[in-house]
Amino acid sequence: MSFSSTLLEQAVNEFAKLPGIGKKTALRLALHLIKQPADDAKLFAESIAGMRRDIQFCSKCCNVSDTALCNICSNSSRKKQIICVVENIRDVIAIESTQQFNGLYHVLGGVISPLDGVGPDQLTIEPLLQRLRTDEVDELIFALSPNIQGDTTLFYISKKIKDLPVKITTIARGIAFGGELEYADELTLAKSLQNRQPVASYVSVK
Amino acid sequence: MSFSSTLLEQAVNEFAKLPGIGKKTALRLALHLIKQPADDAKLFAESIAGMRRDIQFCSKCCNVSDTALCNICSNSSRKKQIICVVENIRDVIAIESTQQFNGLYHVLGGVISPLDGVGPDQLTIEPLLQRLRTDEVDELIFALSPNIQGDTTLFYISKKIKDLPVKITTIARGIAFGGELEYADELTLAKSLQNRQPVASYVSVK
Repeated sequence: MSFSSTLLEQAVNEFAKLPGIGKKTALRLALHLIKQPADDAKLFAESIAGMRRDIQFCSKCCNVSDTALCNICSNSSRKKQIICVVENIRDVIAIESTQQFNGLYHVLGGVISPLDGVGPDQLTIEPLLQRLRTDEVDELIFALSPNIQGDTTLFYISKKIKDLPVKITTIARGIAFGGELEYADELTLAKSLQNRQPVASYVSVK
Repeated sequence: MSFSSTLLEQAVNEFAKLPGIGKKTALRLALHLIKQPADDAKLFAESIAGMRRDIQFCSKCCNVSDTALCNICSNSSRKKQIICVVENIRDVIAIESTQQFNGLYHVLGGVISPLDGVGPDQLTIEPLLQRLRTDEVDELIFALSPNIQGDTTLFYISKKIKDLPVKITTIARGIAFGGELEYADELTLAKSLQNRQPVASYVSVK
């Protein structure tokens, strides 16, 4: 691509560094910003620079936060006895969107994956163990991806805390709502049969 | 989506304002920037703010430029007698990438489209007529999209300059390289038959 403006070229190159954004999309985004009012483009740039500069990670759950302690951990109305262990920040947002969980989180920052060079030391497992030792935690809900890496992480942490008086659970696996039985893979279908539930609990209003 | 950080939320909202970027993609981009070194995110923000602040439109061809006259118009090795009329800046970049055109450009900023409320006055047609009157132009190549709006614009401008001693051409329409004859639409196929070319010109090296 040959540009008649270095300023445009720089902005396109910067956009193209983002994941999933190719050169053509980057050009479309940059040209869109050129057409916007100057204040809008300034606000866009400032919100990004400001975010990277000022954002923190919660000292307790490792979630992104504006303050040293995130607004979930510092919320007194949430149950501090239940911790949901997730892989990343996106998972926190997904679970929060369901409005069905009222406990705290712990963001691991990934899962154990030797092939990708991610061992237990790269994750926030030690801070989690520290929380379990100091805070009064009754239940640890694992909401990790159902694959080898997720299961490895689950077993690794379970083994580490087997002497602590904490109940360990994982979120249910099964056929998704809207999913068709005939297209479900055998493992999911087998699991959903094994973990079948009484109809009473299924149809009850939450 | 519920965020634990206002800074993150603002950045996601700003990203989501861009065309073709939804909330989930915006979140992915923002989280990617959080993971990058602080300098990279700063550079990204600065290049965008700087582009919007400092970019200009060439006083002659209306292309984006770092200076009052763009580097195509001010390039003395380009043929000033040939002007290629295009709809937008992306078209200039596309034609420049072919490295087959050595004349100047004129960016209309759109095409006449009454349904979208775009009339001749919203386009840079008057500056183009001015260029034709003052500069010595031999040929005007129209490289507009082959649709009603493009053709309307072509005829409108042709009519305006019919008394000027300038040759008017349009880029060739036909079957694209790699295109299959059987899947081509009738209009394109008919045009490519009408405008058939001697084989000598087709196989000659440029």
